[in-house]
Amino acid sequence: MPLEILRSLLRPATTKIVLMILDGLGGLPIEPGGPTELEAARTPNMDRLASEGTLGQIIPVRPGITPGSGPAHLSLFGFDPLTYEIGRGVLEATGVGMRVNPGDVAARGNFVTLDAGGNIADRRAGRIASEQAAPLVERLQTINIPEVTTEVRLVKEYRFAVIMRGDDLHPAIEDTDPQQTGVPPLSPRATSPDAERTAELFGRWVKEAVRTLSDHPNANGVTLRGFASDPNLPQMLDCYGLKAACVAAYPMYRGISSLVGMDVIQFQGESPADELAAVERAWADYDFFFIHIKKTDSKGEDGDFAGKAKVIESVDQALPTLVELDPDVLILTGDHSTPSRMRYHSWHPVPVLFWAPQTARPDDQMQFGERACARGGLGTFPAYDIMPLALAHAGRLDKFGA
Amino acid sequence: MPLEILRSLLRPATTKIVLMILDGLGGLPIEPGGPTELEAARTPNMDRLASEGTLGQIIPVRPGITPGSGPAHLSLFGFDPLTYEIGRGVLEATGVGMRVNPGDVAARGNFVTLDAGGNIADRRAGRIASEQAAPLVERLQTINIPEVTTEVRLVKEYRFAVIMRGDDLHPAIEDTDPQQTGVPPLSPRATSPDAERTAELFGRWVKEAVRTLSDHPNANGVTLRGFASDPNLPQMLDCYGLKAACVAAYPMYRGISSLVGMDVIQFQGESPADELAAVERAWADYDFFFIHIKKTDSKGEDGDFAGKAKVIESVDQALPTLVELDPDVLILTGDHSTPSRMRYHSWHPVPVLFWAPQTARPDDQMQFGERACARGGLGTFPAYDIMPLALAHAGRLDKFGA
Repeated sequence: MPLEILRSLLRPATTKIVLMILDGLGGLPIEPGGPTELEAARTPNMDRLASEGTLGQIIPVRPGITPGSGPAHLSLFGFDPLTYEIGRGVLEATGVGMRVNPGDVAARGNFVTLDAGGNIADRRAGRIASEQAAPLVERLQTINIPEVTTEVRLVKEYRFAVIMRGDDLHPAIEDTDPQQTGVPPLSPRATSPDAERTAELFGRWVKEAVRTLSDHPNANGVTLRGFASDPNLPQMLDCYGLKAACVAAYPMYRGISSLVGMDVIQFQGESPADELAAVERAWADYDFFFIHIKKTDSKGEDGDFAGKAKVIESVDQALPTLVELDPDVLILTGDHSTPSRMRYHSWHPVPVLFWAPQTARPDDQMQFGERACARGGLGTFPAYDIMPLALAHAGRLDKFGA
Repeated sequence: MPLEILRSLLRPATTKIVLMILDGLGGLPIEPGGPTELEAARTPNMDRLASEGTLGQIIPVRPGITPGSGPAHLSLFGFDPLTYEIGRGVLEATGVGMRVNPGDVAARGNFVTLDAGGNIADRRAGRIASEQAAPLVERLQTINIPEVTTEVRLVKEYRFAVIMRGDDLHPAIEDTDPQQTGVPPLSPRATSPDAERTAELFGRWVKEAVRTLSDHPNANGVTLRGFASDPNLPQMLDCYGLKAACVAAYPMYRGISSLVGMDVIQFQGESPADELAAVERAWADYDFFFIHIKKTDSKGEDGDFAGKAKVIESVDQALPTLVELDPDVLILTGDHSTPSRMRYHSWHPVPVLFWAPQTARPDDQMQFGERACARGGLGTFPAYDIMPLALAHAGRLDKFGA
């Protein structure tokens, strides 16, 4: 549904919507005829919601397309990822709490090891620990390029984010990581005349970085990639009339949420129970909660079928807390599939459970799993249709036309 | 998925994809509650693939739209037939192995019987046999229009194809078949000023044709229709990175395939077994095989329910040859439905079976048939999404976005 039409249909309500994402939820059987991870997991709470609600399958981007986390989440938030795009640099920077304003250019950085000849000996500086990288980031923070200001923050281990702020900056710059060792890092090179000055400024910044890091034994150089500027995404409040909160343990998902105007809720711990406790504390203050569980995807990427099932079970055990908050609409799904058999994101449709005690039309599926979802009442549909469906089930949309 | 984005995601692989089309596969029950042709057919091999793979339904053009063979096949090859179009003249000409180059104008021709007054007495020249028509086509081949060159080839019986080559030709010309007898053929008339010269040239060609045919008792005139030029279609290798082969007994399907850049494999016979033997011989040389079975559609158009089921059974019996070649992805479907009860193409969704032993997500459907496909794990989707799905299942697509 075009956002401007949806916006014209909004009507005020006090209902609450929860979108709970189990990252990489969709799976595959290990053996022919066997269950998927979700089907193998013991999930009595999810199964009860499934029997009361409606099931379906979502397509994250388009049939056959394996999404990265950025496009997959944009789609969940109702924004077609073929129309809206978040650059990698912005994703990393916002993920560690940096603010990318219009006009800024953000990039993701790697510490690298340079040999005596200036060639890259290790593209990840021996994967140095975050504790060792933190003081190096402080050194980078002291670099002074008079025409602009720069902000640098550690992401994790050898990875950092850098934002450049000033007049007339432009992000059309190629990655400086040559993707191989034994050669020097590339210079930042503009792919559009508009970005030539910005490329030159980043070139000077890199030169200063190498100077200030020169005495470090292995993190004595940097590469930059994913140059990007503010994606100017639609905002949840403006599009949907929803005061929206993000409860996520991992930086990237907090970052994407803040780009669409969600408040990021701070909390201790990272288990499903910790996240749901955070939701409970913030319950009165928001209309919409995006809850993100990362570990399903991590276990899938590890090829750990049983481990992924176990994470799903831990979510199931925590679920009653959430149901007791009495949400009007509760959606359980994933951003994409990560079958442990493939150890990677995949294109397969993602099971979705739509629970709305007042308004969902039940189908005759009694268990939350891929096969049941394929027969579910919602059918197979694009992930970006979840938000209009959620608003409808929450009584937040007027009739279209007379 | 936009082709240019899909192209940017391609990654090299050595996997093989087979797209096997049973023309007009979809059907209807003869009696309320009864089976369709596909459901009635004994298909143990297809049913085994169905139980291991995923089922679904494809929409050839748009819901409710009954497609011709051209649009239906474009969609199967991944090209939305509302965006891409093949003119009838080009379809016929390429179907008999003629090459339509950019700038050429092709048309389909009929031999007709003219009476003494120059009016059409028979629009198909008494359906003369191909053997009688062949020398007449040779006569047409001798026609000389100095400004251009022309090439004429017999299609079958009273039908031929003609291509005109020269400078500044344009295909916007109306059919000359008046669709009735007792009146003379129409003159080629331009529907755009750009085509006026071309219409005049075809007018002179028709006059010469009548002169050279004048002594023939029933094929003493011609009509032309479907004036068209090179459709400039996307090519399989460029779009999908696939070296693609067509194995089809009927000229039209070979023609469409060559227009999207497939090599047309020559072989003897026209049974499913003959076609699969041809696939086997060419197996090492291609990444993608399009196999076309015509007889399902022909039996459907004859209203022959049992005959159509029998053709499906003959395909099923030949299928092990194909499975033993060990394709990575095998897709069984149709270009459209041709229910024998309707004796005609129809708009109904077409059952699709997606078999990919390494990557397909099984649903719980155990039989290849319309009712099972309606509950299948792939859902109901546009036929032009088959190619992205095939590439994904064959490990030929990278992740979209970070």
